[in-house]
Amino acid sequence: MSQPIRVAILGYGNLGRGVEAAIQKNKDMELVAIFSRRDPSSFTQQVSAPFVHVSELDAYQDKVDVLVLCGGSATDLPEQTPQYVQQFVVVDSFDTHAKVPEHFAAVDAAAKANNSLGVIATGWDPGLFSLNRVLGESVLPQGDTYTFWGKGLSQGHSDAVRRVPGVAAGVQYTLPNEASVEQVRQGERPELSTREKHVRECYVVLEEGADEATVREAIVTMPHYFEPFDTTVHFISQEELEREHSAMPHGGVVLRSGETEENNKQVVEFGLRLGSNPEFTGSVLVAYARAAHRLFQAGERGAKTVFDIPIGLLSPYSPEELRAGQL
Amino acid sequence: MSQPIRVAILGYGNLGRGVEAAIQKNKDMELVAIFSRRDPSSFTQQVSAPFVHVSELDAYQDKVDVLVLCGGSATDLPEQTPQYVQQFVVVDSFDTHAKVPEHFAAVDAAAKANNSLGVIATGWDPGLFSLNRVLGESVLPQGDTYTFWGKGLSQGHSDAVRRVPGVAAGVQYTLPNEASVEQVRQGERPELSTREKHVRECYVVLEEGADEATVREAIVTMPHYFEPFDTTVHFISQEELEREHSAMPHGGVVLRSGETEENNKQVVEFGLRLGSNPEFTGSVLVAYARAAHRLFQAGERGAKTVFDIPIGLLSPYSPEELRAGQL
Repeated sequence: MSQPIRVAILGYGNLGRGVEAAIQKNKDMELVAIFSRRDPSSFTQQVSAPFVHVSELDAYQDKVDVLVLCGGSATDLPEQTPQYVQQFVVVDSFDTHAKVPEHFAAVDAAAKANNSLGVIATGWDPGLFSLNRVLGESVLPQGDTYTFWGKGLSQGHSDAVRRVPGVAAGVQYTLPNEASVEQVRQGERPELSTREKHVRECYVVLEEGADEATVREAIVTMPHYFEPFDTTVHFISQEELEREHSAMPHGGVVLRSGETEENNKQVVEFGLRLGSNPEFTGSVLVAYARAAHRLFQAGERGAKTVFDIPIGLLSPYSPEELRAGQL
Repeated sequence: MSQPIRVAILGYGNLGRGVEAAIQKNKDMELVAIFSRRDPSSFTQQVSAPFVHVSELDAYQDKVDVLVLCGGSATDLPEQTPQYVQQFVVVDSFDTHAKVPEHFAAVDAAAKANNSLGVIATGWDPGLFSLNRVLGESVLPQGDTYTFWGKGLSQGHSDAVRRVPGVAAGVQYTLPNEASVEQVRQGERPELSTREKHVRECYVVLEEGADEATVREAIVTMPHYFEPFDTTVHFISQEELEREHSAMPHGGVVLRSGETEENNKQVVEFGLRLGSNPEFTGSVLVAYARAAHRLFQAGERGAKTVFDIPIGLLSPYSPEELRAGQL
């Protein structure tokens, strides 16, 4: 740990701020700069490194070991990751599951053509949840895998609630159906319907004069969003909404339930309870930034995913220290 | 998956049988032989491969891709792993935590001198629990790690119960203290005493004429074994003992509780509920046998631990298949 790993951030939304916070907790890392498409003079927040316009990235090629890409998966990362991997070792949290192979191919080609390396699709789902799905299926080939999400704030469903006439403000949480989770934990392997997997909970501030029963009915019967689920609607004040529902919690659980011999049930469980989704995702990105730097230094090139990276490389400790302290 | 991976087992106790069962569930593997120090003619069980005396191992050097060592950590593995890695790619479940560095050094030297590879200390603790401790500490550098074991049958404590005068037969289970686990799950970071971490439960068959109260008192006050814990003693019949308590369940949970910013608690949890401890450990050994074979084929040499091995190598699927299906 003589020389700190020099990290830069591209994109300064919730995730970028999460990465910034995580770097401060890792003593072997140093935040060199925060790059953004916005005009640096428009930033007024207190931050831990200089704000720099993205157009100046070229000048940082020799000053940055890993560039952490904090853009969105819909339009930013499909362009940014293949582009910036040409100049930097990069890490992203691309999360459009169905487009991972396409994204991997683009990053892999660009990285190999430029003697570089990019780690894609880190975070927790995809990311740590993916790791645990593969781990569970590898040690228990005969079995079923279950993923439950929540308790988590869902942006899309919160937006849907806010579009209902009579709603002034509101948030929506997705929660695992606890009875189903417990059933799987006990080694049963049920086929679960959509309704049996998750429930939805809404906290709504009514507009002046709006009718509770009408609003509740409009929400719980909304096709696709709420109709397939058991949905609870709580009416609260604007003040309570701001006080109790401004965090971005999330989490979930991956369960592998299998059998080794006829009567021996084996259950592997991995769960997350996250007080802040973007801060945790940022923390995962930073651990994989450390691994990316080490892989690059060891001569690895091309695109990598969480499946390709030994867990030991995420740790600031050496293999010797890990063997002595953690095995 | 054209050529099956040819696996052999050395040692045929509970763990060896667990490995045998696991190989049958992995279609890309083939069990070549089961080696034992016992006289093969003394084996009467139905098994899925020939029994061979350990003295004939030499003749199998070209017929076996991975030798899975199923001996004990006290006396077998410290000798066997450095010895057999000279001729075979090996995997073991060495579990004397404090002696891992010494064992690693011996296996590493023998493997490198003979152009071979050995994966040591797989299984679940050390093994999957170790992986999750390092993962948790890497993504949440500021926090505390908790390991709770159970519900699990403890051989040493069962023996202690059976030595109490008046006890005809019995078993002991270690269980996590559920209130403490729940406290950690909720993001608190308590300092837990021994009593607060685990509880002990005994199922005892009394000898004819023995007194329940006397036996209970002798158990719960036994220094070191039971006195530091809250211990419950159940008296049951020999028939119930055989019917309900002949399995070898185990498991436990590793929790990392950390903070990313002042008020944001983040909890990562990995848990196992195992109907059969040796069969699950055997399943983990077999997944790491696959990884060992692939690492060796890719040119890796020396000793490896779970920290050095990408999770993707445990899976029978290719990197392309994993990216398309699991990310």
